[in-house]
Parts: sequence; C-alpha cells; structure tokens
Amino acid sequence: MYFQGKKLINDPNDVVTEFIEGLVETYPGLQYLDGFPEVKVVVRADISPGKYGKVAVISGGGSGHEPAHAGFVGEGMLTAAICGDVFASPPVNSILAGIRAVTGPMGCLLIVKNYTGDRMNFGLAAEQAKAEGFKIEMVIVGDDCALPPPRGITGRRGLAGTILVHKVAGAAAASGLSLKDVAAEAQHASEIVGTMGVALSVCTLPGQATSERLGPGKMELGLGIHGEPGVAVTDLQPVDSVVSHVLREILTQETGYVPITRGCRVVLLINGLGGTPMMELMIAAGKAVPRLQLEHGLAVDRVYTGSFMTSLDMAGFSISVMKADEAVLLRLDAPTKAPNWPVGVNGDRPSAKIPLPVPSSPAKSDEELSRPQLLTQQGCVLEFAIEAAATAVINLKANLNEWDAKVGDGDCGSTMFRGASAILEDMKKYYPLNDAAETVNEIGSSIRRVMGGTSGIIYDIFSKAAYAKLNANGDSTVTALLWAEALEDAIAAVSKYGGAKAGYRTMLDALIPASVVLKERLIAGDDPIDAFVLSAEAAAAGAESTKDMQAQAGRSTYVPADVLATVPDPGAMAAVSWYKAAALAVKEKYQT
Amino acid sequence: MYFQGKKLINDPNDVVTEFIEGLVETYPGLQYLDGFPEVKVVVRADISPGKYGKVAVISGGGSGHEPAHAGFVGEGMLTAAICGDVFASPPVNSILAGIRAVTGPMGCLLIVKNYTGDRMNFGLAAEQAKAEGFKIEMVIVGDDCALPPPRGITGRRGLAGTILVHKVAGAAAASGLSLKDVAAEAQHASEIVGTMGVALSVCTLPGQATSERLGPGKMELGLGIHGEPGVAVTDLQPVDSVVSHVLREILTQETGYVPITRGCRVVLLINGLGGTPMMELMIAAGKAVPRLQLEHGLAVDRVYTGSFMTSLDMAGFSISVMKADEAVLLRLDAPTKAPNWPVGVNGDRPSAKIPLPVPSSPAKSDEELSRPQLLTQQGCVLEFAIEAAATAVINLKANLNEWDAKVGDGDCGSTMFRGASAILEDMKKYYPLNDAAETVNEIGSSIRRVMGGTSGIIYDIFSKAAYAKLNANGDSTVTALLWAEALEDAIAAVSKYGGAKAGYRTMLDALIPASVVLKERLIAGDDPIDAFVLSAEAAAAGAESTKDMQAQAGRSTYVPADVLATVPDPGAMAAVSWYKAAALAVKEKYQT
Repeated sequence: MYFQGKKLINDPNDVVTEFIEGLVETYPGLQYLDGFPEVKVVVRADISPGKYGKVAVISGGGSGHEPAHAGFVGEGMLTAAICGDVFASPPVNSILAGIRAVTGPMGCLLIVKNYTGDRMNFGLAAEQAKAEGFKIEMVIVGDDCALPPPRGITGRRGLAGTILVHKVAGAAAASGLSLKDVAAEAQHASEIVGTMGVALSVCTLPGQATSERLGPGKMELGLGIHGEPGVAVTDLQPVDSVVSHVLREILTQETGYVPITRGCRVVLLINGLGGTPMMELMIAAGKAVPRLQLEHGLAVDRVYTGSFMTSLDMAGFSISVMKADEAVLLRLDAPTKAPNWPVGVNGDRPSAKIPLPVPSSPAKSDEELSRPQLLTQQGCVLEFAIEAAATAVINLKANLNEWDAKVGDGDCGSTMFRGASAILEDMKKYYPLNDAAETVNEIGSSIRRVMGGTSGIIYDIFSKAAYAKLNANGDSTVTALLWAEALEDAIAAVSKYGGAKAGYRTMLDALIPASVVLKERLIAGDDPIDAFVLSAEAAAAGAESTKDMQAQAGRSTYVPADVLATVPDPGAMAAVSWYKAAALAVKEKYQT
Repeated sequence: MYFQGKKLINDPNDVVTEFIEGLVETYPGLQYLDGFPEVKVVVRADISPGKYGKVAVISGGGSGHEPAHAGFVGEGMLTAAICGDVFASPPVNSILAGIRAVTGPMGCLLIVKNYTGDRMNFGLAAEQAKAEGFKIEMVIVGDDCALPPPRGITGRRGLAGTILVHKVAGAAAASGLSLKDVAAEAQHASEIVGTMGVALSVCTLPGQATSERLGPGKMELGLGIHGEPGVAVTDLQPVDSVVSHVLREILTQETGYVPITRGCRVVLLINGLGGTPMMELMIAAGKAVPRLQLEHGLAVDRVYTGSFMTSLDMAGFSISVMKADEAVLLRLDAPTKAPNWPVGVNGDRPSAKIPLPVPSSPAKSDEELSRPQLLTQQGCVLEFAIEAAATAVINLKANLNEWDAKVGDGDCGSTMFRGASAILEDMKKYYPLNDAAETVNEIGSSIRRVMGGTSGIIYDIFSKAAYAKLNANGDSTVTALLWAEALEDAIAAVSKYGGAKAGYRTMLDALIPASVVLKERLIAGDDPIDAFVLSAEAAAAGAESTKDMQAQAGRSTYVPADVLATVPDPGAMAAVSWYKAAALAVKEKYQT
C-alpha cells in the first residue's frame, strides 16, 4: 500500500503548476496565460487574444487527469484548457481569463464534465462572459454508465468519453461552423457515448496516504475518475471477463444510456487511468473488439487505445463506446495538432487482420539435403577433417568439464560433446560434403539443434558467417585463402555479436592467433597444409595463454586470479582441439 | 506490495500475443506476420515482402517495454519490430522472418539494445540473412550512464535512448539513403545519447509476485529496464533533486559517456517506465530543461515527454540526453507514421515561454463604482427594494437555520445573512443605483465575496444572467417586462448550471411560479405593481409546496419523507422572503 503513495514530485501543492511548466517546455505549440501560476490556463500559442476567427472550444476542470485537458489543446481540438488544482474545479476568474484570451467574434463553446463544481464555475464564468458581450454556449458531458440512472440534480458523471466530445467539437469548430452548430455537434456527441471504468487500485492524492479500499486480489467496477466508489468490489478476474462485463453494462437496453443497437457502427476508446502500462490497455482493446463484433453485433470503425483521461496513479482502465456514423467519423478523423490525440488510428480498418505471408527461406532440394553418393577429393578431405575434429572434442569432454568446474558452470565438455556428436550423426545422413560452404552451414545448424545457451548460438554464428563468405565464392571449390578469410569473418561475427575481443579469456584467444598466422603464412606463399598446421600451434599457444587472463563475462568474473591461473579457458581449449585435429587430418589426408 | 502484482490480463503466458492483437486492432497501419503467435513480428501493413524500395529498419527484443518496439513501426521509423516474450530475446527464426518480410534490394539495418541474448539472436539472424543474400547491418545501442564503465564483454545496457536512434535511422532510411549511410547515422546517434533511470517500484512479471526490493519511502537510481539493480537505493527525494542528480551523472566528464560539453545543443527525452502518470513525467521535464540550461550551459532544442520504453508496471522514469545538431534535428523532426512517436514537439522552441497577456475585463471608472449623489426615481425605488429584501433575509436568519437543521447543514440562515449584510454594506458604498443592470451585477459580486459554497455561486450566476439580460437593453431604464425576462433568464441559468428543475425542492420552487405569474400578468396587461405582488404570493405558495417534495441533492436526500414534510425548503423560503419584501417595497414606494 505504501508503495502507491510514492510519487516523483516536489511540493504536493505545486504539482499542477509544475505539470504545466513541463507541458509547455515539451510542446512549442502550447502556451500559458499571464497570471500563471495563479491562473492555470493553457492555450494554443498561435492565437492572438480576441482575434480568433473560428469558434473557440474550451474545456477543463480539476487536474489529476493528465493528459486531459491541457494535452488536447491544439488546432482541431481544444483552443484552451482551464486547469484547477488536483480534483478541484478551476476558479471562475481562470475560466473567464481563458474565455477572454481565445474567444473571437465567432464565440466560444465550453465543454464541461458533469460535476457540480465544474457546472457552477464554468456556468458563472459563462454568464459573466456573456455579460461582457461574448457569445457562449456550454455542453455538459455525463457519459458514465456504471451507476443506475441517478435521481435529481447530480446526473451521470463525466468520464473519458468527454475526450471524444472534445475531438468532435474541435473538428467542427476548425471546419468553420457557427457556435450554434458546433454546440449542436458536441451535444449530439455527448449523447451517443457511454463509459465505464474498472480499477485495481484507488488513486493517491499528492502528499496523502493511499486509501486501503481495494485489498489484495480485488478490483472495483464502475468507479469514478476521482476515486469515487463504484458499483462493486469483486475478486480480480481475467481481463477478458472484465471487458465483457463492462461492455454489457455500457450497452444494456435496461438503462438505455447509449442509443446503440445491433447493426450499429461504433468507435471504441480504451483509456488508461494513469498507472496502467500500455501492454494491459492493448490487451483490453484486443479483447473488446471481437466482443463488440460477435456478442453485440456491432461494427467497430475506430479503436483509440492510450491514457487520455487519467486519475492520478490509478491502475485500471475505462472503456468508452460511441455510436459512429460518417459525420462523427469525419470529425474524429480530422487532423489535429493536439499532442495527445492518438495518431495512426484514422482511416478504415480492415474487417479482420490477415497475417502478412512471409517468404520462406530458400528451400533445399532433397538432393542438396543428402550426403552425396560419390565424394570429390575436397569432399573426402572435408569429411575426414570434420570427423577428426568432432572426435577430438568428444575425447576432450572430461577435461573440459573439469576445467570448467573450476572457472564456470562445469558443463563445457558436456555441451561441446553434444554438438560434436550431432555433427557426426548429421554428417552421415545429409551433409552435402562436396559443397564446403553448405556443409559449414549445416554444421552450424547441427550445433544449434542440440547445444543450448550462449555457446550453441556463438558457434552457429561462427558457422553462418563462414558460410556467407564461402558461399559468396559461387564455386564449390574452396581455396586455402578463402578458408582463411571465412575464418576471419567468422571470428569478426562472434566478436561483434558476442562482444568478446582478444584477451577476454574466450575461444577467440585460440582462434584469433590461428587466423592471423594462417593468413600471414598463406600470403607469404607457404604451403597451405603447413600454414594450417602452424596456425593450429598458434591456437594452442593462445589457449594456454588464457591462464593469465582476467575473465570478462560470466561466472569466471567471480573467480580469483590465482585460481584462474591454474586452468586455461575451457572454450579456448575446445576450439584448439577441433582446430588442431582438423589441421592434422588435412595434412594426413593430403600426404597419404 | 501485493497491489503491484495485480494486472488486468488473462493468462500470463499470453500477454505478448494479446498485446499485439490489440495493437493491430488499434492501428490499421500495423500488421503481424504469418506464423503468429509463434512468430511475433509487427510490420508496416503497406509493405510487400521483398519489394520495399528503401532501407528497412528493424528493431525488437524482449517484450514488456511497450510501446517499444512495435508502437514505433511506421513509415519514417521502424519497418518491423520483432517481439520476444516478456524480457526474453526473440528467437532467431522470428527475427529472420521479419528480415525476409520487409527487406528489399536496399538492405536492412538491425538496431539492437546491448543485451547478450539480443546481440546473439539478432546476430545469428543477421548472418543467416546475409547467407541468404540480404544486405544487413547492425547497430548496437548501449546508452546507460548509471553504472561505471564495465569491463569486458557486457558493455553498457541499451535503454530509452534507443528510441531516438530508431527515429534517426528511420528518417535517414525514409530519405532514401544507402544501407551504409543509414547505419552510419544510427551508429553516430547511438554514440551521442546517454540515459539514466530512477524508480519507485520494481516491475512485476505477469503471473509473478512483486519483488520487495524497494521498501516504503525508498527509490532506486540507475536501475535497468528489466528491473536489474541500479547503483543505489536511497530515501525518496523531491523530483527536483532526482533530476539534478541524474543529469549530472549522464553528463559527467568522469565517465565521458556522452560527448556533450557546455555550449552544446541537446534534445531531452523523459521516459515513463510504465506505471508513471504523465503529470509526474511533465514535472520532471519542466525541471530538467532549466537545469540543463542553467547548470550545464546547454541549449535544449527538443523535449520528448511520454512513456516510450517502459518496464512493465515500474513506477519511475528515465532521462535521456542526446547531443543535437542540424543533421540530427532534421531526422528527429522528419514526419513519421509510427503511432507512438510524440507529435507536436517539432520545430524550434522559444528560448523561454512568455505568458500570453489576457485582455482584462472592461474596467470600471470611479464614477461607475460609487453610489450616485442624486438618485433617479428608478434608482430610489431600487435602493428601497434592495434594502427591504436584504433586511427580510436578515430577519429570517434564525428560522432559516432552524429549518435547515432539520433537512440540511443548519447554516442556510447564517449563509444568507452574510450575503444580505454584504449587499447592504456595499450598496451604500458603491452600487450605481441609477443603473439597474449594473446594480444587479454588483449584488452578485457582493454575494460571491462573502457567501461560500454552492449557494453563493448559484446566486452569483442568478445575478450575472439577469444582468446580461438587463444590460442587453442598452438603456438604464428598465421596464417591468424586462425585469420579468431577466428573472426568466436568471432561473434558466441556475437550472442549467445547477441542474435543478421544478419539483427538486430548491429555491427554484419559489422562483419559477413567481416568474410564470409575473410574465402572465404583465402580458395580460395588469398593472406591473399588482403583477409583482401577485407573483410574490405565487412564490410563497411554491415554497410552501416544497414540504411535499423529495430532495434531489445534498444532505436532504438522506432525510426521511415524513421529516421533510414538516419543513419547507430553506432555500425556497429565503427566496420568498427577499422576493416578497422587494415586491411590497416597490408597491409602497410607488403608492406613496
């Protein structure tokens, strides 16, 4: 509980002022009025007082619902937002200052959520502005569907559906309509939208303790955006059931809150309440759409998912459903510069998403995927070398495990054993040995198939990089120099993706010296077989030198240097074993 | 603690799949690949496999960072996002499927956050794709500035700065550059951005219990986006200090992580970690900007505030600072259709926000604001009527309190007494009694000055609405019919903003019958004084009838009907008292 009381703020009394300061720092198109911070009014920066040529659309109310309302100020949506203190209606003078700042000859529409304080304060400001000669209309939004029809004065609470009313009104105003027509569209919008919320936690006022109303494993249905109690506290349920229940409550004919019946088109708004990650909002959206379609027989034209009208740090969301027709969609789709209106939602949605087909990897023919009946000379040598290399690793299993037990997980030998065994097995079945490049590629796949963890993927990367180089040749005969270059590329890829360099006490400390010597000797004109054997000796020396190296990753980093000095790096020793065995096998094959 | 474990999800194993379903329902421009949900790849819906004419930009990694990475897919930013399970690197086959789906002849840039699993899996996929003939480059981002320079393989963690690298690369690719040039810009971007996070809570994995690492009143500095431990756990501090500390850590010359020195231009990214309300993010942004300017001598060119790279439900934020120049700004400002890239941030920021001046209300001259020396006949009658009305209310104080004690707060008489006394006092000082409209306006102001709560603002609305009607006349002489119409408008305004109607047991139950009778009699041609007196009798009858009404608001709604039947509504009785006294005073004045 105490966790929720924590906030990254300064003085709890300054949160609204400091929010507005950050908002105008973030958005160059927003500005605050003179008199700030007493007067907390955010306006479009591109409007000159008294000269605005369209109907001004103003909303506001208590703060704590960010980004509402100031984040929806911008061309095509709100002209100004009046910010009260947290959950407190703004004072009449602030509202009046906002009206005076942005209202031109076309007049001003006030959009007010249905709370007594807001109605009164905006109402008084409206009357005063009218007395000063401004043309003013007001639309009051009460979209809550959670509670039964209230008796009397109170009426239904204004919730996140208000954001859709802002957008409709803002777009209507931007299109140049008269105040009367803008007000009529906003009024209509307010009558075709219904909202209900659900929460896992009650919000915490800045500087105050968190309410204990919602215990562990509990959720609350139908609560208000100021933490007002809802209809019921229940056990936490899968969001699928929650979404179903909420949609049924909004759409029930019993209350008749929204004029939506089977066959209608609707837009959906999934609204985070402040402490809800987007993952959860999207999950709710993904469940709500098919539910609206299948259970309620509605076409879903647009989906708006995000945090629009929050309740401080409340964890939960509200769902709003608005009846849609071409006229409403035109307003919702109209461009706006309001920073927090969602982008990328416009335009017709496909009725169902059809997954994009993926071109499959170049398929291999049966012939390619079987061991050739007849081996070329190179194929013959390759088979002999692979067999020798794999066998060497298999024979070193116990030593590798023993070394690794001192500096690592103790399973290096077993892991390498699995890879080597798979290579021997797969080679007999289907390695295309007459094609060196493809064979190297298959070695990587065999390793990946059976070796988990980092070493498996490292060796697969090694093989794939070598394959890419060998394959670029376009010829199945591979020169010694090409082998050397493939080794270089393979080392470079392992270093790049794995992050290790020379001296990091890894297999590269065997392979890098080998690669350097091999290339050097070949360029110097040595016999390729001699060069290969020489490079294997360099690998062995390199592996031995790892004893004096500090570890740079994994468990070895926790092993004291004096212990490390007694064992070489098992990965480097494994690399030496297969590299050296291959070199000697090639020498043996060519010299016999 | 247990609160934080609560999530609005279904099966914890399905969160990523269901997130993607909701995402593509929300954004028509996004699509997922065939093979979903095993293959979790989100791509631009407008791209045909293998035919894309620009460099594809792909990112991804473990999920749990929403909207990253899928929410940044769109023209001008990412071409595809590869989604792993929560905090788990995506499998190689998924990455490869994504590469194959969107990569055309221009090639593909992979942008990978620096985590071993991601480097390896994206690395292997890259090598495999190269082997298939694709042109591939990879840029690895490690922007973390919280920890000291790590030794060896691991390197610095990739954090929210990666989003800025995505944007730079995406815009470079959209501009038609070659793979080499796009990769170079991305690489450069990754080298000029630094990030550090701070959190109030550790994230909770779906289906798991919440870690108890961060106790009450504690915060953690420099932790990772998977909840990896940071540099220090400290007592919770004002966000001002937190921001200062974090900025100093990012910019310190000691680590030299970012090449930013005094006089540089920078962009700032304030990134919510999943459970942080926008209010807190904006407060941090508002504090960071002046700090960068004044303490570090930097020009802040752009501010991006929102939740971009989250860590499930973690409460906290990270700050990223990127060195800016014209080339980088060009990329950051370039248009994109990626739904979660912030809008409204582009373009040059004013160096400081200058508050927009507000036209003040029409000032009143001294003459207007003082009681006239000589009263007209109408002014004389008005003064007499106001004095009688206020005195009647004052005399009724005890009765009103007594009635109100039975059905409400018990302070109706005291509240009305304050208003009436203020009217008498102010009238003597400055009511412009020869101007009836202005006098009515001042009555409202007197009431507002001393009467708190609903009744004060209701009577002020009443006065302002009447004033607007009277004033529209443009003449200081007011006819009886105009008074009647002003009463109608005043009642309409109170009903509209206050929500009460006839029969709701309020002051309107006295005033509505009075208004109806007054208008009727005047239209019927009655003598205005007779009409006024008759209407006062209707008011009295109306107030008496409130005994039989149910209350519709406030404390009276909790009072049983048999108790309500013993007392009239105090508000209605107060209205009768001033209305009737005024009527009788007018009669007396004209008849003497």
